[in-house]
Amino acid sequence: MKTRDRILVTSLELFNLCGEPNVTTIDIANEMDISPGNLYYHFRNKDEIIAELFQQFETSMHEVLQSPQEEGLEIMDYWMYIHMVFERIWEYRFLYRDLATILERNEKLQKRFNRILDKKAANCRLIMNSMRDSGIITITDKQIESLATNVVITGTYWMNYQQVRNLGDNPELEDLGRGVYQVMSLILPYLPPEGQEALEAVAATYLE
Amino acid sequence: MKTRDRILVTSLELFNLCGEPNVTTIDIANEMDISPGNLYYHFRNKDEIIAELFQQFETSMHEVLQSPQEEGLEIMDYWMYIHMVFERIWEYRFLYRDLATILERNEKLQKRFNRILDKKAANCRLIMNSMRDSGIITITDKQIESLATNVVITGTYWMNYQQVRNLGDNPELEDLGRGVYQVMSLILPYLPPEGQEALEAVAATYLE
Repeated sequence: MKTRDRILVTSLELFNLCGEPNVTTIDIANEMDISPGNLYYHFRNKDEIIAELFQQFETSMHEVLQSPQEEGLEIMDYWMYIHMVFERIWEYRFLYRDLATILERNEKLQKRFNRILDKKAANCRLIMNSMRDSGIITITDKQIESLATNVVITGTYWMNYQQVRNLGDNPELEDLGRGVYQVMSLILPYLPPEGQEALEAVAATYLE
Repeated sequence: MKTRDRILVTSLELFNLCGEPNVTTIDIANEMDISPGNLYYHFRNKDEIIAELFQQFETSMHEVLQSPQEEGLEIMDYWMYIHMVFERIWEYRFLYRDLATILERNEKLQKRFNRILDKKAANCRLIMNSMRDSGIITITDKQIESLATNVVITGTYWMNYQQVRNLGDNPELEDLGRGVYQVMSLILPYLPPEGQEALEAVAATYLE
């Protein structure tokens, strides 16, 4: 692997493990056993590393957020879709751990992150509208709006919530399924009885 | 006001305005026009200031979280109750801006913060159980459990979400009402039609 790529991989690992504010470029160089000068040759400072990692995250997230737009999707399809979104968040979880502090340092990243949140909210609206059009659920425009916001909030902060709840332990990949359930449970009360049962059945399969 | 109290008031203002990671004890001393030595005489470091502010926050929060347990409360009462919780969060919003990073530095604060979250979840369960017992709503134990978690997540991260959404602007006190609405909207689909209408009417009064 090229040194530049190794710097990115190592930084991502350390950021995810320790929290971005607790990792310096010196820590990254030490971990890689290279000189700080060698690191600075590739990235002038930590923010340049973060910008590059953000770019990777953004590409990966927009790829997933190409919403499942076909008609007639099952609860299972939505579950898998939300799980894929959570996997991307997991991969770059350092961003979500210190979101406000990382984004305030770079206005462009802040705008780009908000576009991802906009896209998530838009997808939620799309799915709810399509369910309403098919007569599966009864929901007002206003309810769709506040539901979309709550889906975005739970989706965005689930990982942070896990970190705060699990004193000292790093969140585990297995927690993602429970995050998916929390997001799906926002939609649950709008579903008809058979939809609610289908959701609980899918949840039971994925959450032992 | 005594110097010690002035340090606390100034620290809280600066933390809320700039974010705790961006404020040093030197900044606090400069803002107050006192020498760093004078500040260190009262607090040996920033974490001691944070511990004291946390203590104030905790006392104030537990006071509010004495849940409204009487029977026959109206939607308006719950609205006001959640608004009071949000006012406490607003007052100490620096905690919520960098929650994971601030709490990881002090295991005791982390435990105490989690007790506040436990209390919030317990109150939510209590209210939903009481509504179910009065026959106002139909909801399963499992739904109450995931609802309580979502109420805690939206309640905890609303302020952070506002900061991320409003590029560069500090959140405003008026945003609290919208936060209350987001929390209430989690419960809305479980309410009977007249309860939903009552909630929308209360929301219309408070959110022009």
